[in-house]
Amino acid sequence: MFDINCICADLRQGASVLAFQNTGQKNRALSRVADQIDRRRRAILDANRGDMERARDSGMGGPLLDRLELNDARIEAIIESVRIVIAAHDPVGEIVSGCTLPNGLELRQVRVPLGIAAIIYESRPQVTVDAFALAYKSGNAILLRGSAAAIDSNGALSDAIRAGLEAAGPDGVPGAFALAGGGERAEVDAILGARGLIDVLLPRGGAALIRYVAENARVPVIETGSGVCHLFVDESACLEHAAAIAENGKLQRPGVCNALETLLVHRGRLDDFLPLLARVFAGRAEFRADEEAYRVLCSCGAAPFTVRAGDADFGAEFLDTILAVKTVSGLDEAISFINRHNTGHSEAIVTRNLENARRFQRMVDAACVYVNASTRFTDGGEFGFGAELGISTQKLHARGPMGLEALTTTKYLIEGEGQIR
Amino acid sequence: MFDINCICADLRQGASVLAFQNTGQKNRALSRVADQIDRRRRAILDANRGDMERARDSGMGGPLLDRLELNDARIEAIIESVRIVIAAHDPVGEIVSGCTLPNGLELRQVRVPLGIAAIIYESRPQVTVDAFALAYKSGNAILLRGSAAAIDSNGALSDAIRAGLEAAGPDGVPGAFALAGGGERAEVDAILGARGLIDVLLPRGGAALIRYVAENARVPVIETGSGVCHLFVDESACLEHAAAIAENGKLQRPGVCNALETLLVHRGRLDDFLPLLARVFAGRAEFRADEEAYRVLCSCGAAPFTVRAGDADFGAEFLDTILAVKTVSGLDEAISFINRHNTGHSEAIVTRNLENARRFQRMVDAACVYVNASTRFTDGGEFGFGAELGISTQKLHARGPMGLEALTTTKYLIEGEGQIR
Repeated sequence: MFDINCICADLRQGASVLAFQNTGQKNRALSRVADQIDRRRRAILDANRGDMERARDSGMGGPLLDRLELNDARIEAIIESVRIVIAAHDPVGEIVSGCTLPNGLELRQVRVPLGIAAIIYESRPQVTVDAFALAYKSGNAILLRGSAAAIDSNGALSDAIRAGLEAAGPDGVPGAFALAGGGERAEVDAILGARGLIDVLLPRGGAALIRYVAENARVPVIETGSGVCHLFVDESACLEHAAAIAENGKLQRPGVCNALETLLVHRGRLDDFLPLLARVFAGRAEFRADEEAYRVLCSCGAAPFTVRAGDADFGAEFLDTILAVKTVSGLDEAISFINRHNTGHSEAIVTRNLENARRFQRMVDAACVYVNASTRFTDGGEFGFGAELGISTQKLHARGPMGLEALTTTKYLIEGEGQIR
Repeated sequence: MFDINCICADLRQGASVLAFQNTGQKNRALSRVADQIDRRRRAILDANRGDMERARDSGMGGPLLDRLELNDARIEAIIESVRIVIAAHDPVGEIVSGCTLPNGLELRQVRVPLGIAAIIYESRPQVTVDAFALAYKSGNAILLRGSAAAIDSNGALSDAIRAGLEAAGPDGVPGAFALAGGGERAEVDAILGARGLIDVLLPRGGAALIRYVAENARVPVIETGSGVCHLFVDESACLEHAAAIAENGKLQRPGVCNALETLLVHRGRLDDFLPLLARVFAGRAEFRADEEAYRVLCSCGAAPFTVRAGDADFGAEFLDTILAVKTVSGLDEAISFINRHNTGHSEAIVTRNLENARRFQRMVDAACVYVNASTRFTDGGEFGFGAELGISTQKLHARGPMGLEALTTTKYLIEGEGQIR
């Protein structure tokens, strides 16, 4: 039985111990967790095979299956992500600012853990370990609520985490971590309503999950992960770069949030660029094109992979080998189209025009705005933050790839000798 | 007629112009606003007199009347707060972090305005100008929704703001500011539901307002202002300091959020401290005391000003000359009592014991934790931030006194030469 009050009371207890573990203790505990994941590799992969079989039987699509799958390389990546968190700077205790006020009061603004974090996530099981490790290193207890599809994988990873924390003896705080079953929708609603019990909730998954959380949460939320990313090919673009960036954005890993979903092409380059794009893509994605782009794509032999776009295709997060293609008259139409259809994640322009590059970066409202580079770079690891907790698509608290700091707040400590105002 | 879609569409237009005004332009516009407030002083004070009369007729209490009142000194303070904002550093455009990644991508994290801020506030009319000036300087459009009690004062101040922005010519953006009537509750609900239209909402007022907003908002909120502040007099305290800090906290300005509401006294100092406290207070506040403190207060002649506390007195935000008094057995009881009853605002200990001072600062969960100083110092001006937008009592985004930075977010700008992942 899932009792949110009970779970959070235990986590609060864990959090109050963990908040005062020093960095060395936290690193030793995380190191034990990494060891246990390594040792339990067979059990974890077996559990994942069960999840994968059930997912295939239920008709889950390719990119979602890719998100669910674990293999030796991904286990290595999980362990490596724990090692990266161990190596990362512990933000707790950092003095963010400080001074002596004119009246002699000594003021320090100090970084402290938030307390209890919760994460509701969809099928990717490595999030279980990533989120735990980041929360633990930053001194927060965490409640993890994965999807039903990954229930066995998450259970096996969670067993490894707990075993590691227990093996760490006085350096480990097993009470600072809990995994919700993942079975019932009621669990999600209980987490959303736990005002005063949970300090921050991170939903991590598709647009439907994010929307449900945003509309129903009574706890503070950091929105993460939903990405409808656009690439605008400007009139002056280097078309080889544009085609390579489109290919990388759409095809390298279509199931992730920084993948490209919509391509905007300057009308003046339609006839040059789309045939090149079709050659580079070589039938590996379906184009959903507006009328003008449709005609050009069909006339250059891409007809078998091209359909006419419906309105719903613009602004859609396909997470699949589907690319919406739209013709625009120029920079301003591209910017306003993006600001109407995007999710505040990552947007890119390919251009040689300095003024257009500057204007695009200023006016597009998103966490990450690229000039002549792929949106796939929006990632804590790529940005050099170590493992990441997600990509924030909101404006408050944290925006873009989030590392350890996003799970902290600050507190002012003021010391005097009897000062009054 | 209040049409939130229409108002926000106009503000969005204003925000998109204001976001690209440079600091000089914004300062010149603010300077014109300050001039207009000065010139229109008579009209503003007349309008305020009308509000004050209606408030007195409706039976409004002393501390609330004090919040509503404007006079020459407070007009000076309003003008001075605009001048402080003009002098303050403009955070927009600041490069928060940046590097060249190993693949040659150039990454800059740049501070940008949030977009549209809204503020719902209670009777203090100077908030109209403070909030406007901070929002404007940080490049945000702002929707102000004051209380019905201050409707004429806010209207007169708003007229001055608009006149100033218009007088500034091309340096002013009058469209970046709107005042809601203040009449109907429906206005508040429309603001709370304006998801996607408003980027941040700041409720500023009593606990009931904050709670209503927190429970009903669909827009991002920064909770401000509700303050149930405690002072703990430890066993080793200097009692003269303790009495002076209690007096300052409770009596200097009882109607504000950093005023003291509850006094916790170590059992071992009850007999020494309470008679001193009663002498210093000299009947200027009512004590609502638990049984032990009640007996001591009555035996030292404070009986006329002392009543037995009910459960509801602990954790109450009196905003009046009332002080709850509670006896505790020591530091740990004080800390856990505070963490159960406070609002995350400001808490203080008076002690000579280093270990207790450190433990209190670490364990008490609040934006500001004081050792041997008054909670009244929690204020953007006192902390050296210039005018403040409020005191955040939440943990995400901003905590404690907030200045200009709290109204900004960041954006990553990434430039390359065709890089793909």
